[in-house]
Amino acid sequence: MSDKLKSLIRSIKDFPKEGIVFRDITTLLKDPAGMKETLELLYEAAKDKNITKVVGIESRGFIFGGALAEKLNVGFVPVRKPGKLPAEIWSETYSLEYGTDRIEIHKDAVSKGDRVLIHDDLLATGGTMQAACNLLEKMGAEIVQLSFLIELTFLNGRDKLKDYESIALIKYDSE
Amino acid sequence: MSDKLKSLIRSIKDFPKEGIVFRDITTLLKDPAGMKETLELLYEAAKDKNITKVVGIESRGFIFGGALAEKLNVGFVPVRKPGKLPAEIWSETYSLEYGTDRIEIHKDAVSKGDRVLIHDDLLATGGTMQAACNLLEKMGAEIVQLSFLIELTFLNGRDKLKDYESIALIKYDSE
Repeated sequence: MSDKLKSLIRSIKDFPKEGIVFRDITTLLKDPAGMKETLELLYEAAKDKNITKVVGIESRGFIFGGALAEKLNVGFVPVRKPGKLPAEIWSETYSLEYGTDRIEIHKDAVSKGDRVLIHDDLLATGGTMQAACNLLEKMGAEIVQLSFLIELTFLNGRDKLKDYESIALIKYDSE
Repeated sequence: MSDKLKSLIRSIKDFPKEGIVFRDITTLLKDPAGMKETLELLYEAAKDKNITKVVGIESRGFIFGGALAEKLNVGFVPVRKPGKLPAEIWSETYSLEYGTDRIEIHKDAVSKGDRVLIHDDLLATGGTMQAACNLLEKMGAEIVQLSFLIELTFLNGRDKLKDYESIALIKYDSE
């Protein structure tokens, strides 16, 4: 947890719809010290875990996911929205508040025994990350860490992910 | 230009539609040495140019855009698809083969006099990058470098961008 990073987040009311307070990371991203500290904290939490792949979830999970993979000296794997990946894929459908959504991964992106870290910017209800974990486990990877910039603890997303180690650099306990 | 990086790209025929050869960077991304060399080459090309912000175009431009900003010790600014940015935005519409598309940037993302590098994974016809340049110039930023992983030179995207320095690590002279 970092109070300094939290101070760089901008809160915007009623986005994307009324009643929601959106936690905007772009004010952190445009701050050079914010970029440095975020990557350093993610790296410190992951560096001694023999991770072999970093998986990033489209699209904000790509921003630090790529940087973290490079710093850990491992490969980066994108989990993408439907129809974007050109080779053979596995896909996973998951529930949203209204309707469903789907994510995809290349079949050759990880190998059995890969020790993966999955990164996204935000842990809200946990649905997307749970779907990503399901995909990676079906492929035979070992999920070593889930890392997030922000966790909205009052949405209890961590309950869906309790089989895994999860870290978040910034937490909000209420809207 | 890097032959080693080019050897890590996978070419997939008829994606996203018949007659197109898609240059797939995911095989480079999952290679640790490919990640390292790519970031190092982008960094070497940019490090002596007094860049103050790295702008990355959603979503594949985020993968190395974030890493490059952190390594250059500057802020990162996302250019996003419509409706994703929560604060006040500028937007720019541009032409596609059929129809139009639009990109957006936060109004407070860059300041007059910022020296920006704009990064994307692919230079094809150059429409998206040209739209990004228009946005940044309207905001008073100086565009110091455009950097791409891949350039499809036969599509002549560089013609649209000839006012700027452009670099590409990998080039394809034909489909």
